[in-house]
Amino acid sequence: MPDRLHLNLFTMASVEHVSPGSWAYPGDRSPGYADREYWTEVARTAERGGFDAVFFADVRGVYDVYGDDREVAVEKAVQTPANDPQLLVPAMAEVTEDLGFAVTRSTTYTHPYQLAREFSTLDHLTDGRIAINVVTSYLQSAAENLGLDERMDKETRYDRADEFLDVCYALWEDSWEDDAVEIDRESGRYANPAKVHAIDHVGDHFSVPGPHGCEPSPQRTPVIYQAGSSDRGREFAAANAEAVFASQPTEAGVREYMRDVKSRAADHGRDPERLRFFIGVVPIVGETEAAAEAKHDAYAAHVDVEATLALLSGFLDMDLSEIDPDRKVEHIETDAIQGTMNAFTRSQPDRDWTVREVAEFCGLGTTSPTIVGTPEQVADELAYWHEEVGVHGFNVKEIVRPDSLTDFVDLVVPELRERGLVSDPKSAGGSGGRRASGTNWGSGRSRRSGTSCGNRGGSTLRERLLGTGRARLHDDHPARREPASER
Amino acid sequence: MPDRLHLNLFTMASVEHVSPGSWAYPGDRSPGYADREYWTEVARTAERGGFDAVFFADVRGVYDVYGDDREVAVEKAVQTPANDPQLLVPAMAEVTEDLGFAVTRSTTYTHPYQLAREFSTLDHLTDGRIAINVVTSYLQSAAENLGLDERMDKETRYDRADEFLDVCYALWEDSWEDDAVEIDRESGRYANPAKVHAIDHVGDHFSVPGPHGCEPSPQRTPVIYQAGSSDRGREFAAANAEAVFASQPTEAGVREYMRDVKSRAADHGRDPERLRFFIGVVPIVGETEAAAEAKHDAYAAHVDVEATLALLSGFLDMDLSEIDPDRKVEHIETDAIQGTMNAFTRSQPDRDWTVREVAEFCGLGTTSPTIVGTPEQVADELAYWHEEVGVHGFNVKEIVRPDSLTDFVDLVVPELRERGLVSDPKSAGGSGGRRASGTNWGSGRSRRSGTSCGNRGGSTLRERLLGTGRARLHDDHPARREPASER
Repeated sequence: MPDRLHLNLFTMASVEHVSPGSWAYPGDRSPGYADREYWTEVARTAERGGFDAVFFADVRGVYDVYGDDREVAVEKAVQTPANDPQLLVPAMAEVTEDLGFAVTRSTTYTHPYQLAREFSTLDHLTDGRIAINVVTSYLQSAAENLGLDERMDKETRYDRADEFLDVCYALWEDSWEDDAVEIDRESGRYANPAKVHAIDHVGDHFSVPGPHGCEPSPQRTPVIYQAGSSDRGREFAAANAEAVFASQPTEAGVREYMRDVKSRAADHGRDPERLRFFIGVVPIVGETEAAAEAKHDAYAAHVDVEATLALLSGFLDMDLSEIDPDRKVEHIETDAIQGTMNAFTRSQPDRDWTVREVAEFCGLGTTSPTIVGTPEQVADELAYWHEEVGVHGFNVKEIVRPDSLTDFVDLVVPELRERGLVSDPKSAGGSGGRRASGTNWGSGRSRRSGTSCGNRGGSTLRERLLGTGRARLHDDHPARREPASER
Repeated sequence: MPDRLHLNLFTMASVEHVSPGSWAYPGDRSPGYADREYWTEVARTAERGGFDAVFFADVRGVYDVYGDDREVAVEKAVQTPANDPQLLVPAMAEVTEDLGFAVTRSTTYTHPYQLAREFSTLDHLTDGRIAINVVTSYLQSAAENLGLDERMDKETRYDRADEFLDVCYALWEDSWEDDAVEIDRESGRYANPAKVHAIDHVGDHFSVPGPHGCEPSPQRTPVIYQAGSSDRGREFAAANAEAVFASQPTEAGVREYMRDVKSRAADHGRDPERLRFFIGVVPIVGETEAAAEAKHDAYAAHVDVEATLALLSGFLDMDLSEIDPDRKVEHIETDAIQGTMNAFTRSQPDRDWTVREVAEFCGLGTTSPTIVGTPEQVADELAYWHEEVGVHGFNVKEIVRPDSLTDFVDLVVPELRERGLVSDPKSAGGSGGRRASGTNWGSGRSRRSGTSCGNRGGSTLRERLLGTGRARLHDDHPARREPASER
């Protein structure tokens, strides 16, 4: 376990993410989600607070399972509208030096040759600060809009995702050799064609001859984030992920999940100790315990129960509008709904919940632990998960924007820094852009070829998570072990 | 014809664009193409020079027609490697206020629901400074990498492109009404679901129920650029384009093209005078005529003939490696090759060209007029095209980077400003970023809903091209005329 804990801001390019109703909280800035200025300020604040990365959730389609209608989702902005998160990254990179960016992308509705190009471009533009959170998508409405009458079943989605990553790995790792790019002005030779290889992938879902259209970027393969929780999802994470998001709501669940995924990773020939586990947390912090409690109650009062039920209906693919919200969960006839409702609230197993109470609970960051208290109390709780349970870091979820972030940065991070759990800012005036003015046409000669770490000032995101000198995927990762044709 | 002429920098996120060999010119910065810093400096310089937009060409796949092999293309960086241009835009927008961005995207290898989302996001992030250059792609290697064994034939590609734009138009224009977004914190109502409509598109190529996943952006539909030159391409441009790129190499050809496309636009019920025509130009400028000539000769000496033939082979889909480069064009047995070679050099019809000479000619910006001279001479030539031929603007092509751009901005633009052909910079310290530091969480309340022009300081790109108050597509455009189901 590393000494320092890792921090991602878990957010979404939408009005609402995991706290339906909170956009209407007085002073909340969520309706600015479409503006570049909103996101550059998020980036500066996260960098100032020692965050490793901003982690963008994403979803396509609309939450129309609830009531078999999109009305509630549109009216209450339940993850709709939502802009494309990867386009925020270059602007946020422009105003920061070290902050990383994890972007959620679905393997179900795009093509690996295209996605590989986008992430190589992003890795170049960010000097190696990019990660991808690989998902397979769950909304029927997304499938319909993107050309499928029916969602693929889960097994097919994961089969496709496996092959999708194989193609991307081959493009990122195997196509251009490290010394392929020569930039020899004398001979007029930019690259050595003998060192730029086709990948000749022919599979069930894709046929991609290659070569990759982009030269090697600082990290080559972006850092791979994954959050699989089903059996197939855990296998996928164990095989591919470098950073794993455990969404189990209890400590026992997180411990079991980590043990299981590590064991599966070992079965895949990977060193399980190189995986980095994150859990979601919802910190609500005040200068005093009473202030924190008051803030929590004010936030809770803004939870929109109906909007939360629309969100949960999409997650579960079950229409919760058909259930009386004041019904006790234990009296619901549908076992599946009862089971998942109980799963959401497993952290308080002895309570007798109504559906409404589950929604009120989930409306503050869904299933992640809510930590309400003073900076010391929040730091204690994070330190406990870090030091006792062994998680490496946290996906910090927002309720009110930007207060959830600024409270954390201004109140909790100083406490974490005092304990040596978050590193100090690099320089006094840390954030605010690499350069404000002046002329700089870049290196003019690629700094990229033949080096394992490309960026100037800081380090790549992978090095930040795994240590200096580890800009590239480790040799035990499947992308590095076998040629594409063997995988 | 407007008084002011319009300027696009025509470039590409690659080592080489239209001047094969020039990256090896002493001091050329093209190998920095993958760096964010290179592009932010391009943006600052273009804005300083009064450019309306940076226009990104793009291509997928590799130029492997020449010699039926990719060797020359890879060795000499013939538009390979090439990064994804749209990801450069947000960083370039961050350091500028008024500069627009036109991004080439193919309708052949993407899905309209996805593309509509990307451009809505970009239009939001740039405060309405985005355009799309719609292409249908021509490289077989791109088709193979993106899942097609064979390129679609041209007719099918255009049929698909027509339907593709219909879907995008419906998502951009018809799905969210202007006053759909309410942001009413009291009632908790973000949007009025009765004003957010499905588009229910069912066609030959796509089935997209909608609604659009993004709320209306400042321009809704990005400015539509197009460069069709075939009969079908001209029809497509006449129906859809707001800015048209005429690539005919002679004045007579440009005049005929403009007349024809305008006439076709009128047939589509559009006001032809609202179309904006651009031609490509290759300015090579010096303080004196002799200095300009010397620069031209130095640039010409760096043209890589073999690389140019590889580029032309891809353009023409004909393998020019099979022809002796010292053969006279008129002696080539293949009529098609002879015809296109002659087309390239139509500006000097009386010369007796060898294949090598055609390549040397095309290696300086392909078919666009090269204008070599003093700032006054270059300005005279641009003024002639603008005032006498009636083109509205120019796509300025680069030979050496950044010299082609900086020479134009530092030498030609002052002359054009003196003549009133390019507007003066807005403020003394013009470029360099909207704000260097400080805290700004954006508006917090959308400035977008219900306004026809969203951005704060400057104007949208469409207004820049068509006049203040014209942020949205004109009513005579097909996207505005009929509901999606009727198109």
